[in-house]
Amino acid sequence: MGPVRLALLAVVALAAAGEAVYIPYNTSAGVAAGKLNVHVVPHTHDDVGWLKTVDQYYVGSNNSIQGACVQNVLDSLIPALLKDENRKFIYVEQAFFQRWWRNQNDMIKDTVKGLISSGRLELINGGMCMHDEATVHYIDMIDQTTLGHKFIKEEFGQVPRIGWQIDPFGHSAVQAYLLGAEVGFDAFYFFRIDYQDRDTRKGTKELEVVWRGSKSFGSSADIFAGIFPKNYEPPPGDFYFEVDDDSPVVQDDPLLFDYNVEERVNDFVAAALAQANITRTNHIMFTMGTDFKYQYAESWFRNMDKLIHYVNKDGRINALYSTPSIYTDAKYAANEQWPLKTNDFFPYADNPNAYWTGYFTSRPALKRYVRMMSGYYLAARQLEFFKGKSKSGPTTDYLGDALALAQHHDAVTGTEKQHVANDYAKRLSIGYTRCLLLNVTFCPPSEMDFSKGKGLVVLVYNSLGWKREDILRVPVFSDSIVVHDSEGREVESQLLPIASASLNIRDKHVKAYLGTSPGAKPKFWLAFPVSVPPLGFNTYFVSSTKKSASVSSKSTIYSSQGSEDSNLQVGQGNLKLQYNAAGALSLYSDSKTLIEANFEQKYKYYIGQDGNGSDPQASGAYIFRPNGTVPVKTDSQVPLTVLRGPIVDEVHQQINSWIYQITRVYKGKDYVETEFIVGPVPTDDGNGKEVATEIVTNMVTNKTFYTDSSGRDFIKRIRDYRSEWKIEVHQPIAGNYYPVNLGIYVEDGNKELSVLVDRSVGGSSIKDGQIELMLHRRLLHDDGRGVAEALDETVCLNNQCEGLIIEGKYYLKIDPQGEGARWRRTFGQEIYSPLLLAFSEQDGGNWANSHIPKFSAMDPTYSLPDNVALLTLQELEDGSVLLRFAHLYEAGEHKDLSALASVDLKRVFPDKKIGKIIETSLSANQERAAMEKKRLKWKVQGPEADEKVVRGGPVDPAKLVVELGPMEIRTFIVSFERSISGEQLL
Amino acid sequence: MGPVRLALLAVVALAAAGEAVYIPYNTSAGVAAGKLNVHVVPHTHDDVGWLKTVDQYYVGSNNSIQGACVQNVLDSLIPALLKDENRKFIYVEQAFFQRWWRNQNDMIKDTVKGLISSGRLELINGGMCMHDEATVHYIDMIDQTTLGHKFIKEEFGQVPRIGWQIDPFGHSAVQAYLLGAEVGFDAFYFFRIDYQDRDTRKGTKELEVVWRGSKSFGSSADIFAGIFPKNYEPPPGDFYFEVDDDSPVVQDDPLLFDYNVEERVNDFVAAALAQANITRTNHIMFTMGTDFKYQYAESWFRNMDKLIHYVNKDGRINALYSTPSIYTDAKYAANEQWPLKTNDFFPYADNPNAYWTGYFTSRPALKRYVRMMSGYYLAARQLEFFKGKSKSGPTTDYLGDALALAQHHDAVTGTEKQHVANDYAKRLSIGYTRCLLLNVTFCPPSEMDFSKGKGLVVLVYNSLGWKREDILRVPVFSDSIVVHDSEGREVESQLLPIASASLNIRDKHVKAYLGTSPGAKPKFWLAFPVSVPPLGFNTYFVSSTKKSASVSSKSTIYSSQGSEDSNLQVGQGNLKLQYNAAGALSLYSDSKTLIEANFEQKYKYYIGQDGNGSDPQASGAYIFRPNGTVPVKTDSQVPLTVLRGPIVDEVHQQINSWIYQITRVYKGKDYVETEFIVGPVPTDDGNGKEVATEIVTNMVTNKTFYTDSSGRDFIKRIRDYRSEWKIEVHQPIAGNYYPVNLGIYVEDGNKELSVLVDRSVGGSSIKDGQIELMLHRRLLHDDGRGVAEALDETVCLNNQCEGLIIEGKYYLKIDPQGEGARWRRTFGQEIYSPLLLAFSEQDGGNWANSHIPKFSAMDPTYSLPDNVALLTLQELEDGSVLLRFAHLYEAGEHKDLSALASVDLKRVFPDKKIGKIIETSLSANQERAAMEKKRLKWKVQGPEADEKVVRGGPVDPAKLVVELGPMEIRTFIVSFERSISGEQLL
Repeated sequence: MGPVRLALLAVVALAAAGEAVYIPYNTSAGVAAGKLNVHVVPHTHDDVGWLKTVDQYYVGSNNSIQGACVQNVLDSLIPALLKDENRKFIYVEQAFFQRWWRNQNDMIKDTVKGLISSGRLELINGGMCMHDEATVHYIDMIDQTTLGHKFIKEEFGQVPRIGWQIDPFGHSAVQAYLLGAEVGFDAFYFFRIDYQDRDTRKGTKELEVVWRGSKSFGSSADIFAGIFPKNYEPPPGDFYFEVDDDSPVVQDDPLLFDYNVEERVNDFVAAALAQANITRTNHIMFTMGTDFKYQYAESWFRNMDKLIHYVNKDGRINALYSTPSIYTDAKYAANEQWPLKTNDFFPYADNPNAYWTGYFTSRPALKRYVRMMSGYYLAARQLEFFKGKSKSGPTTDYLGDALALAQHHDAVTGTEKQHVANDYAKRLSIGYTRCLLLNVTFCPPSEMDFSKGKGLVVLVYNSLGWKREDILRVPVFSDSIVVHDSEGREVESQLLPIASASLNIRDKHVKAYLGTSPGAKPKFWLAFPVSVPPLGFNTYFVSSTKKSASVSSKSTIYSSQGSEDSNLQVGQGNLKLQYNAAGALSLYSDSKTLIEANFEQKYKYYIGQDGNGSDPQASGAYIFRPNGTVPVKTDSQVPLTVLRGPIVDEVHQQINSWIYQITRVYKGKDYVETEFIVGPVPTDDGNGKEVATEIVTNMVTNKTFYTDSSGRDFIKRIRDYRSEWKIEVHQPIAGNYYPVNLGIYVEDGNKELSVLVDRSVGGSSIKDGQIELMLHRRLLHDDGRGVAEALDETVCLNNQCEGLIIEGKYYLKIDPQGEGARWRRTFGQEIYSPLLLAFSEQDGGNWANSHIPKFSAMDPTYSLPDNVALLTLQELEDGSVLLRFAHLYEAGEHKDLSALASVDLKRVFPDKKIGKIIETSLSANQERAAMEKKRLKWKVQGPEADEKVVRGGPVDPAKLVVELGPMEIRTFIVSFERSISGEQLL
Repeated sequence: MGPVRLALLAVVALAAAGEAVYIPYNTSAGVAAGKLNVHVVPHTHDDVGWLKTVDQYYVGSNNSIQGACVQNVLDSLIPALLKDENRKFIYVEQAFFQRWWRNQNDMIKDTVKGLISSGRLELINGGMCMHDEATVHYIDMIDQTTLGHKFIKEEFGQVPRIGWQIDPFGHSAVQAYLLGAEVGFDAFYFFRIDYQDRDTRKGTKELEVVWRGSKSFGSSADIFAGIFPKNYEPPPGDFYFEVDDDSPVVQDDPLLFDYNVEERVNDFVAAALAQANITRTNHIMFTMGTDFKYQYAESWFRNMDKLIHYVNKDGRINALYSTPSIYTDAKYAANEQWPLKTNDFFPYADNPNAYWTGYFTSRPALKRYVRMMSGYYLAARQLEFFKGKSKSGPTTDYLGDALALAQHHDAVTGTEKQHVANDYAKRLSIGYTRCLLLNVTFCPPSEMDFSKGKGLVVLVYNSLGWKREDILRVPVFSDSIVVHDSEGREVESQLLPIASASLNIRDKHVKAYLGTSPGAKPKFWLAFPVSVPPLGFNTYFVSSTKKSASVSSKSTIYSSQGSEDSNLQVGQGNLKLQYNAAGALSLYSDSKTLIEANFEQKYKYYIGQDGNGSDPQASGAYIFRPNGTVPVKTDSQVPLTVLRGPIVDEVHQQINSWIYQITRVYKGKDYVETEFIVGPVPTDDGNGKEVATEIVTNMVTNKTFYTDSSGRDFIKRIRDYRSEWKIEVHQPIAGNYYPVNLGIYVEDGNKELSVLVDRSVGGSSIKDGQIELMLHRRLLHDDGRGVAEALDETVCLNNQCEGLIIEGKYYLKIDPQGEGARWRRTFGQEIYSPLLLAFSEQDGGNWANSHIPKFSAMDPTYSLPDNVALLTLQELEDGSVLLRFAHLYEAGEHKDLSALASVDLKRVFPDKKIGKIIETSLSANQERAAMEKKRLKWKVQGPEADEKVVRGGPVDPAKLVVELGPMEIRTFIVSFERSISGEQLL
């Protein structure tokens, strides 16, 4: 029976026999002086939507896509934490935590409150989601963080201390200083930085730094920034303990085979020593967890208990259950001087050919929808405040929640699966619908038949703190229209035939989404100028007329083959654009500023690398990897059409079969507005395409351009260069792309060329004098970062699907050097907060008799300073008001407007008496003074900077004047002595 | 912005807004009269080894093979059960439960005791494993069940009520009546029966039956048998709720999307109605779980809570948390008459070409090792009892545990992965080694050099209750040997040259497993007769001698080319075998019984279906699917060698290059012993092979043959026929294979041809007059039942691997009709319990002076009746003794020996006084009388049977005589008034 001897001879040394007993693991270690301290930080990373929707992740449905259930994480966490008082856990995403919380009974709630108050469960970061930092506007960052922090404060009395942006794909300066320091965070942890940067930092032990993200704030907004050495997962060496993970569990039962305590202790110590080797101080952090882990928390804690117990018994190092707060305090206690980091961490590449710069533009329709809703949410909360927040009816809360989710780093980024993108849009749409109900009871289309004596009432709301002049456009049927203002005066107006490209989109999408075709097509856009007071509205009346005198002007129409007219000029005011014989823009001139610039504007596309062949990296939702550039050639046979009139001149160009463009110059405006309709991007040649527009001038720009950081500060970019480390350039295009939320500009010492955007896009200056924006991406391959879908958005009608069409605008201006900031800041704010329209029908009678036609919430003689915006005016549940003002200029950005600004609250709220005003942290969860007092002050290597930071002083409760220094955002909780009713207004 | 409208228009009806609150689910339902009751039975099925070893499954290591961790199941179960007092769970495999239990602290233990005593956690089946029923000997079944039940009784005071053999691959009659009814079970649940049988039963609602497994016991050993309609998993309709399972979770939070309560309730009701449609009474069972599920128990209970809550709110049916006990009681309370089932459920097929009859033979070396250890364990416990069980030193416990594990339905079955098979063997080897230490202090090889005056002492132990005459064989170097018995008398002996085939195996395996070559090769087998008293030993002395008179006889050697001698005869006693001119067996004759039979014995192999092509079913570890039969042709050039001597005649045949055979006829014995050495089975032709031997006679057997049920009852088999349902024959060979643990026989009215085996094998009578046994299987493809390895056992030496060689024996006898049973039963018991040898060295001196040379534990004038075996004699921790006797004959099996038998305990234990004797259930966990009183009596359809069941009466404590009726096994706990010391014995 030879073979059976195998067994006999393979016998391993067995521990002595006898009954095994319960082993009480000693997990009580704290920080140990003189030893390497391994901070074991148990965590889960729960995307609020990515491969599945947020709700699917929460309840654990749709597991065929991804096995993930956040309810399991939180349910299983509680008994696991109760099992050993030394165990700790951090939880981050409040969208999930709140879903879970509201399903718990009081017993569990009490237990959890105990765990939180004792620090065993710590809520960090604390926003509704872990927002993206490239494609998210800072106002959205603030809002979603405030929402999460508010819940944590109200429910648990806690104030998160730590930023935990472990997954976003690159990191913005605004995140560091504004959503970090200004929120009161002591530290900020993440891992996704350029692989070359990381390698450099490992060598110099500069993965942990003090990040000074704001030039205006200098050291007053420093934050400790910890970059993880590899990722946010457990260290190398197989320490994954999820149910079904295949890391070796710690097997310490001597009665069972495969006892492995020594091996596992050695593995742990080796991982610790390796990490210590690239880290300053004797503290390192092991991030024990990853995406959607701790579905059964005990399986992690069981193994971590054993590791801590046996590692400390071994004695070479000290392992302890910890949190980022404890870790941060330990770092601080080390009293070290840290390397300084300025600027930001964009763009992010994880491989030589893998620049995560595609997502700056991915899903441009979703990005636009988010931005629209963001501006709308700001305005809607103002209206809600004026009206008085409803206790039972519709509120802005749903929209606030929906918007918060949409800021997630797999939401507005466009890096989610299609069905998840649909889910975000659905939530926004529900939120928007609810807000519509909030303030509009009747909303007929403007496409009404005015022949029956009816008139259209257009209520125009301005959420900015300044009086605003703008041009409205509404579609109409009639060609004889007259517009009156709220005082009965006729307003000059212009009719522009609606482009068939626009009508086609209208027809197709109404059919695709409503299932029915729209009725008769409107024929014209009616354009007319409006003037709206700050924080207020005005009313305009549109009706048909027979009188020829006052009728709106029809645009003159001029169609030109490129060759017919060699010098076509448009523009009724100071600004003129000139088109050359080929029908292409050739000259920009402004008679007021005397700017004149040679100028080209064109389209091109990059062919998306398909990832076939030996190098598998494709261009995809995350990654931009061009494989050749193709200029879009305009068919010179297609005429260029010019519409002219008293309000606006429009140049319509069918660039090619799938790009249509309208360039507008408004009489009273000194910028160019370009509307583009791009798509369906053809892919029948088998190539994915990434469509960009570029503006080419002969400006000498020295490789330098500027892009905004999360819509706020502008950061200097130099092509093929990083200011703090030496880059080896593998991707000369993708590696020079940056996120653009507000705008991008170049300058040559004489003038500045600025382009502002209507949503988040990727942009660059690939050549001197040039600016480009990527407008649309349609790709046929997945780029291997997990989403497992090609970014190939389609719209289906009768089971026929075609590529998504993107419609959008960008705005362009050339200013004398030093003057660009004013337009970028002021007009940028107007783009963010467009006029809000509500429609009603006037059927005889006089609207003005029964309604207030014009209103400003502020003192009629007051408006906010040009350099200040009202970011938040929001009624809270307790009747108090959240108020947030922002200075719009950086220190030194503009010779006049970078000065200290003042807001007179008494004139902002002329009808109310402020009883109490408390200045808070940015996220409104603690008093500002207390925050400043307790926030850690980190030491920086090198000489102290010579800083002149200007910030506003305390608000005198008698004077009620709020001062704001450059870039300052100040947040207040205001209580009014008497509340108002907004009934009369709306 | 057309596309973003998608969202708006896709808005689903949302439940009314507002804060969701904790929903207290009502899970309190019990059985409801007048409604369909769905018994929701949460369970996990945890193989104690299969793809991973038992310890790997327990701790959750090696998860790359299979994500499974039983520790998670049990850890997570406790908080889940505590969360709602209505939740219930059953746990089955005590090998796992005990591993877990000994790691728990007192608090958890107390909690679990509470859960068990309140019935929320029920331990059912209760053996260490869920043993196989085809390849497991009934003595092993009893031992492993007793071991598990003992723990449950001692630790929790519980007695399992329910058999739960949900996974074994077919079901044996012995399981039903012996390990079911005789253990005290009220019901027995399983699912693997032939698919045709199942289909029939669904139509007639006969999936739930009363199974009468014993002809001898009749209705007194009836048991309710519930066959699951499909498998042991949740019903059709997606009700799998493991972490990461993709069944739709019940989403009942109206604030989240995808609310699906109605759909899920409808799914549940539909599944219930479908099952009710094939089930009698208004009770059905949903088996909520499957292999290694409940890793995080809460994820199942959370969904089951909701289903029960909402289904009962719906009201069409009644769903309740239940257990098989509650279900069984409900079935019983229905007072129904149930269809009767007799015989067994072999063979099992789950598809027309998928007969699970391969595993009857798979891993024949492991199967033999298990059987050897099983017999050894029986004897070792006797010795341990005589010696007094050690408190600290080695005990038989480890071997008992190892053997218990080996009975698992993926252990001895051979259906586990290779590394797991190694693990079982390793455990047996450790257990065996420990037992060796128990009773042997010195064990020199018998291959000693007798020239130095040393002698070999051979102690021969007989664990049977009868005096035994047998032939011993030990390898020796010398050719002049003399053997003396314990009284100094010379014993006739014979030297047989050791076949080179045997020596080759020896050399190869010693090298492969020890890493070194064995020393000098022994030249001879020394054969000599021994006589050993019942439950006792005798001692023999082997030494070298110069005296020619008493020296052992060398065998005469005769080599024959088949053609030289046309009528070769062997056999020194009554039995003669005759070989024909081709060197093949041709005649069997017994001069005592006057039996004479034409006779052929040969080899063949089946080509294993490879599963390529359109029909993917391969032959594999589980499934026997032959693709052609190839006779093994003997090379007629290879001589047949005959060794003759006073003790035994041997015929050696090299059948082909990889089959060697030795046929033996002992002078004093009237059966044929055949030793086969098969392998390495060649596969260089790309074919897997399944090697069988067949005995062909001209007996007229009418398609009928008999095989044992788990080594106990013989069951009549008819080729291509099932007694209780109509079979459609797709696999005329595989579909007629049955498990053979003890033997197989055919009869023709005049005589019986019986073959007994040394391990579990598959066997059949494929043609009239024929018997075949499958001896070895080497296959190249996996058969798709999960093990995911081809059954291709190899042995590796210097990194060269070749197919495993199998050595074994079978025994054959032809008896006059009606007399076969005596040999099958008595000699069958001797095969199971071979004489146990211990060796010592005699170096001068007289052994007998310092040792007792001969001993019987029983009264020297007593032996057990011929029809009774002592199954268990085992000292328990408290000093009491577990005693088990078995009647070896079925009712009517033998004209004399099927009678009531009596055992006189006073003579079995002559030196001891029995203080107390309690008869218990078979697994010794309850008093027999109490068990009989409480066991449910099920009603059977049709007229009452006219039964004459003979069972022994109660044991009179004064007389202490145990009566046993046919097939009766009686179990006792005996306490002796004084304990004995066995020191003097060993």
